[in-house]
Amino acid sequence: MTVSMYAASVPVFEQMLGGLGGVLNKAEAYAAEKKIEPAVLLQARLFPDMFPLVRQVQIACDFAKSVPSRLAGVEVPAYDDNEQTFAELHARIAKTLALIGGLDAMLFEGSEQREIVLRPGTPKERKLDGQAYLLSYGLPQFFFHVTTAYALLRHNGVEVGKRDYMGAY
Amino acid sequence: MTVSMYAASVPVFEQMLGGLGGVLNKAEAYAAEKKIEPAVLLQARLFPDMFPLVRQVQIACDFAKSVPSRLAGVEVPAYDDNEQTFAELHARIAKTLALIGGLDAMLFEGSEQREIVLRPGTPKERKLDGQAYLLSYGLPQFFFHVTTAYALLRHNGVEVGKRDYMGAY
Repeated sequence: MTVSMYAASVPVFEQMLGGLGGVLNKAEAYAAEKKIEPAVLLQARLFPDMFPLVRQVQIACDFAKSVPSRLAGVEVPAYDDNEQTFAELHARIAKTLALIGGLDAMLFEGSEQREIVLRPGTPKERKLDGQAYLLSYGLPQFFFHVTTAYALLRHNGVEVGKRDYMGAY
Repeated sequence: MTVSMYAASVPVFEQMLGGLGGVLNKAEAYAAEKKIEPAVLLQARLFPDMFPLVRQVQIACDFAKSVPSRLAGVEVPAYDDNEQTFAELHARIAKTLALIGGLDAMLFEGSEQREIVLRPGTPKERKLDGQAYLLSYGLPQFFFHVTTAYALLRHNGVEVGKRDYMGAY
């Protein structure tokens, strides 16, 4: 017995995006309570050449939309990357959840062997089968940005705990 | 076709622990170059009530040893949690890699349905099947601590990039 590619992808992204949304809610409430301009948190970074919170959340959503979509063999919708507020980040999470929530588990059958091309047509092009794409690339990338968003807010004093990060499981 | 519980666990932990070891190497070299006492990085935190680097690495190893061991149905070895140096953290990573590298993939067969009890005997006791234990609990926890270790060092100026975090894949 084994695990389906669907089970190893969509529900994981859903759980963690749910957690991320909760973390953002606490960040927004914290900004209001402390009279911090929301943009200060949204543009906060852990180091000057790291991405700010907004971009961390955007990229987390990018992996959450693209990894399941590519495994399912459906086109990955483009996002505009123009979010500036907590509400807009929540909207991006919501549209990502709607997208992956609508993917039929049947589409993932055989996806562990499907060839996925990373950065096609670039010098860094790389081919992976679907299993490696999910387990060795997609999940590590996704968790990186979800955790960095959390760490960045925690560093700024937002009172979140690992339970918030974990989401509902 | 699907993914085996072994493939969804041991190689993922191996890849990321390899990355974490590389990140720690760069941190140690940075401390030497900048004449920073290694303990300053080892005890660095992103917020006063977060765990310092040493503990982040210890806990990452704890998940990397316990999740595969419990899925495989073998006893989880206890670690002393007494690491104080980069060399000792590398040793903890190495013994974790040796442990999980020695687990027979056959032991993971059927583990997606094996009942795993979290925090047994405590008020927070929780039962999960092996699939949920790995995908909804073990991997998110593990990635949290690996990424937090990275973020903490990046915040302290260590010149690591996501490529270091990702390890070899």
